[in-house]
Amino acid sequence: MTTVAAYAAPAAKAPLERTTIERRAVGENDVLIEIKFAGICHSDIHMATAGWGEAIFPMVPGHEIAGVVTEVGSAVTKFQVGDHAGVGCMVDSCRECEYCKAGKEQYCVKGNVQTYGAVGKDGEVTYGGYSTHIVVDQDFALRIPDGLSLDVAAPLLCAGITTYSPLKHWNAGPGKKVAVLGMGGLGHMGVKLAHALGAEVTVLSQSLRKKDDGLKLGADHYYATSDPETFEKLRGSFDLILSTVSAPLDFAAYLSLLKTDGALVNVGAPEEPVSLNLFALLGGRKTLAGSMIGGIRETQEMLDFCAAHGIGAEIELIAASEINEAYERVLKSDVRYRFVIDAATI
Amino acid sequence: MTTVAAYAAPAAKAPLERTTIERRAVGENDVLIEIKFAGICHSDIHMATAGWGEAIFPMVPGHEIAGVVTEVGSAVTKFQVGDHAGVGCMVDSCRECEYCKAGKEQYCVKGNVQTYGAVGKDGEVTYGGYSTHIVVDQDFALRIPDGLSLDVAAPLLCAGITTYSPLKHWNAGPGKKVAVLGMGGLGHMGVKLAHALGAEVTVLSQSLRKKDDGLKLGADHYYATSDPETFEKLRGSFDLILSTVSAPLDFAAYLSLLKTDGALVNVGAPEEPVSLNLFALLGGRKTLAGSMIGGIRETQEMLDFCAAHGIGAEIELIAASEINEAYERVLKSDVRYRFVIDAATI
Repeated sequence: MTTVAAYAAPAAKAPLERTTIERRAVGENDVLIEIKFAGICHSDIHMATAGWGEAIFPMVPGHEIAGVVTEVGSAVTKFQVGDHAGVGCMVDSCRECEYCKAGKEQYCVKGNVQTYGAVGKDGEVTYGGYSTHIVVDQDFALRIPDGLSLDVAAPLLCAGITTYSPLKHWNAGPGKKVAVLGMGGLGHMGVKLAHALGAEVTVLSQSLRKKDDGLKLGADHYYATSDPETFEKLRGSFDLILSTVSAPLDFAAYLSLLKTDGALVNVGAPEEPVSLNLFALLGGRKTLAGSMIGGIRETQEMLDFCAAHGIGAEIELIAASEINEAYERVLKSDVRYRFVIDAATI
Repeated sequence: MTTVAAYAAPAAKAPLERTTIERRAVGENDVLIEIKFAGICHSDIHMATAGWGEAIFPMVPGHEIAGVVTEVGSAVTKFQVGDHAGVGCMVDSCRECEYCKAGKEQYCVKGNVQTYGAVGKDGEVTYGGYSTHIVVDQDFALRIPDGLSLDVAAPLLCAGITTYSPLKHWNAGPGKKVAVLGMGGLGHMGVKLAHALGAEVTVLSQSLRKKDDGLKLGADHYYATSDPETFEKLRGSFDLILSTVSAPLDFAAYLSLLKTDGALVNVGAPEEPVSLNLFALLGGRKTLAGSMIGGIRETQEMLDFCAAHGIGAEIELIAASEINEAYERVLKSDVRYRFVIDAATI
């Protein structure tokens, strides 16, 4: 056991503050990672405020982790000391179910072990990336290729894979018209990735405020959803709409933007149920679907893809002391496009 | 122009009564079909009561039509006099859009011409199958293989293709677990077809009242949805659920019965919007989708498949004078499993 520094929420909705936590001893399959950067994901705020139900406190959020391996267990083959490594949303799973065996640990039937706010197989609470070090099983650690700077790589571990996985699954690529709904932490990654995958990319955002950014990041078109003409003009246009927003939507309106056989895939979701007229699906054999992060194998594929295409997140680097302020700004969508904590300041 | 006998609803919600209508002269691409049998589809009742909005009266319903070709136009190559032929839900489409060209006339961007209650390209109102004869473009007439009796073949033109098309599209077949929700006109065809396609078939019906029938038609399992234990027991079981019901459902409960990457496909739909918590889709990358009949090419494929597998609908044959009574019984789900009108009684 090692005592390390961390930022934790002592209770639901309480401001995060500096503290220390214990990390387990490095087991034979474990790696010790000295965390260099940790992204702030919107779900950190949901979790730290217990907005998604009961949660375990104190809580150290953070599942967008990038750092350097400083120690490896005796059975570790995947990493050497000095390697760049990342940790995403999961640190373990049952490893036996059909989904785990297929590399879809995110859909583990027994439920995977989340990087923070969960209880691991050893009975200990997991603590996330707002910390100086983390000990993780090598099977749930990712290799961060040399071509990627660790600061812009960190958000790939959640925002990157959450958008990459559905883009791949629903065949975003050359000849496909993809709309990315929402231009935030997830959305800006969706734009970069869909563009790099070869799709024709349209951003659908509430306003045109971030249009210049969107076009710079790879969007071919940019429309405001506050303008009713957008829905007239784009009717029947898209093969895929990737919705990154968690506000309730007029789903019939967005489904009308799909071609026949098109899919509207949600990676964000409102906490409350939405209202949907099913005829909006029948008319063009349309799909409304959801997707949740990605498996370990696919996360590695995404990181390698990002390195090959020079893709990182657009970030605002902050000191750990600015976390609470950053949370406020995330809630106001006032971030371009991901806050990343410099772990040296923890 | 030929005057032929028909049963028509003179106005919305008025009982159907015997009348005469005009059929167009047989054009060079047309076939004249002497109708032998016409199925009663639930949508006939929606249409005849104007339950789906404004409708054109008098209305001759019927889009499950089976008969014998008695005259062919000079350019007709697909049929000869004496051939068995069928007509389904469409009698024309734009023929130029990407969907028409791909054989998906049901999703024609200009809207196809429905078999009844619509206005054709010639400006004339279309009249359906509750009639002794119909004139149809050969491109929208189907060949009914010799192995199929015309009476049990008639319902295939809507109930058959409406279930066959999504079963094929979502890969029902060997190794796949398919649930058919609802055991009515559509549902009983879904069971027969999914079984013939090689899937393991489960019926989900409100009660066990039709269990013996379901097993006889090819279901491997049969559960009552009124029993809460059904949802416990079948959690995470299915690759595909084909919902044939138009009553509002607890969609989260049904989505929980799907495996990861499973799809709940609606071919029936309630008129009112439904409430849906999107997290029910995110958790296992699940799909909620809709499907509407099938294209002409696929309808022919379905008829050939049915002939090869000895599949027809389960029917109750009625005289035309019993149509109004049959409508009452359909509304009470009191039919096993499709009413078919003997056109000789019109």
